[in-house]
Amino acid sequence: MCQLLGMNCNTPTDISFSFEGFRRRAGVTDKHSDGFGIAFFEGKGVRIFRDNQPAAFSPLGDVVKNYRIKSFNVIAHIRQATQGAVNIENTHPFIREIWGENWVFAHNGTVEDLEICPNNHYQPIGTTDSERAFCCMAAELKKRFSEKPTERELFNAVVDISEEIATKGVFNFILSNGEWMIARCATKLHYVTRKHPFSKVFREDDVVIDFSQYTTEQDKVTIITTQPLTKNEEWIEMKNGGYVFFKDGDKVFEIVGTLPPCKAHV
Amino acid sequence: MCQLLGMNCNTPTDISFSFEGFRRRAGVTDKHSDGFGIAFFEGKGVRIFRDNQPAAFSPLGDVVKNYRIKSFNVIAHIRQATQGAVNIENTHPFIREIWGENWVFAHNGTVEDLEICPNNHYQPIGTTDSERAFCCMAAELKKRFSEKPTERELFNAVVDISEEIATKGVFNFILSNGEWMIARCATKLHYVTRKHPFSKVFREDDVVIDFSQYTTEQDKVTIITTQPLTKNEEWIEMKNGGYVFFKDGDKVFEIVGTLPPCKAHV
Repeated sequence: MCQLLGMNCNTPTDISFSFEGFRRRAGVTDKHSDGFGIAFFEGKGVRIFRDNQPAAFSPLGDVVKNYRIKSFNVIAHIRQATQGAVNIENTHPFIREIWGENWVFAHNGTVEDLEICPNNHYQPIGTTDSERAFCCMAAELKKRFSEKPTERELFNAVVDISEEIATKGVFNFILSNGEWMIARCATKLHYVTRKHPFSKVFREDDVVIDFSQYTTEQDKVTIITTQPLTKNEEWIEMKNGGYVFFKDGDKVFEIVGTLPPCKAHV
Repeated sequence: MCQLLGMNCNTPTDISFSFEGFRRRAGVTDKHSDGFGIAFFEGKGVRIFRDNQPAAFSPLGDVVKNYRIKSFNVIAHIRQATQGAVNIENTHPFIREIWGENWVFAHNGTVEDLEICPNNHYQPIGTTDSERAFCCMAAELKKRFSEKPTERELFNAVVDISEEIATKGVFNFILSNGEWMIARCATKLHYVTRKHPFSKVFREDDVVIDFSQYTTEQDKVTIITTQPLTKNEEWIEMKNGGYVFFKDGDKVFEIVGTLPPCKAHV
C-alpha cells in the first residue's frame, strides 16, 4: 500500500515539517520506497515534483525541503507499487485539467476491473489502477456537468461516483482543484486542523516545532494523512465510506461513514 | 517575446550544456526574465519544473543543472510576458493528456482572438494566448481523431490546424508527445543535429564541450532553439511557415516554408 498526505489552509503554508516526517516513511521508518510525488498549488497553477527514487533519499525530496514553497493546497504520495512499474508515469499525484482547472489526485489502495472506453474524455497515461480510477471520475464529472458546478453539487457528485468505484476495491484518496480538498477513507485516513491557540507539536521522530512562532490567530491549517504524523495532537480517524471537504482549512461538508475501517486491507 | 529550446534524441541525453547557455538569456545576457519552464520526458511520464523567477537565478534552474536528468525529449521556455500575469499557470511549457499521452507545448509570439467555446474538450487554466492556442489545437486533434492516428496523419493535421491559428498572429512553437518533436517557425527558429563525428562545441559564452567524450557513433541529438546557442555549428534557420518533425534525432517530415522570416516580428 501507499501513503497519502494532504494540506488545506487559509494562508500560504510551508508543509516542510509534515513532509519531512512523511518522507521518512519512504525508505527510513517504512518501506514505501517506489517513488514519491508532491504537488503544490500556486494560484491556479501547480508545481509537481515526482521521482522514482525513495522520497527519503531523493534529491528532489531535498529540493522540496530546501525550497520551502508556501501553498494553500498540497498533495503528496509515497508509493509501494502494487500495480504498474516503478516509473514517472505511474507516480502519484496524477493531474488533469477539468473545466479550466488543475485537478490533482492521489490514491491509496487497489481498485480492479475499471473499464475505460477508448473514447473516454480522459485516458490513463501509465498503467496504474489509480490513474484509471481518476480518469473514470474526471470523465464522469465532465459528463454530468459541462461547466463547473457549485461546490455542494460537486461534492455530491464526487461521492456518488466514488461509491461506484469503491465497489471495485480499496479507495482511499485525496483530491484538490487548488480551492478545496476532498478526502475519502476506505481503510485508513486521519486529519487534524491546527488553529489558534497554536502550540508545540512533536513529530513521531521527536522533532519539535512551536507553531505559535510562525502563525497568526487567523491561520487554519488542516493536514490529512494515512497515519498520524505527530504524537501530541488529536488526529481524527475517518471511517470506511467517510468523506470530508475542506476549504480554507475548515471542514465544509462531511459524510462520516458508517463502517469501521477495514483493518484487513490496511 | 519569449525564447524556445527543444531537444530530440535517439539516446537519453543530458541537456545541461544547452540549457545552461539558454538560461543565461533569462536575466544575464537578455531580458526574458518573467519565469521559465522545462519539461523532461521520461518514458510516457514527464517531469516539469516551472518558476516565476528568471531562469538564470532560479533555484529550480540550479536543480535542473545539478540533477542532470537524461531524456529523449525536452522542451524549455524562457518568458518575457506579453499576455497574462507572471505566475505559474501562465508559465510554459503547457501540458495536456491526449489519447493517453502527455503532450507538451511551448510558444513564442502572440496569437490574438482565438475563440474557445465553454464546451471545448480542453480549457485554458491561465490567461495566456499560448495556452489558448494549445487548447484549440488539442481539441481539434481530438475531434478529428478519436484514437491516435499515424505520425504522418498527425503531422498533416498539426500543420493544417497551425496554419489556421497562425493567421491570428505570430506562431513559433515546439510540441512533443515524448516520441517525436514538432517545431513550427513564424519569425525565428533554428536547429542543429549533432551526430558522429562529434567534436568540440563552443557555446556563445565561450564554455566549451567535447561531445566526442560523451557519445557513441550511433548517437543523434537535435537541438531546436529560437537563437543559436553555439558559435561553431551550422544551425539551420527555419522559414516562416516551416515545420519539422523529428524522431530519434532524425528529421522525418518537413515543410520548408515559403516566406522569409518576418524580422519585424522578431
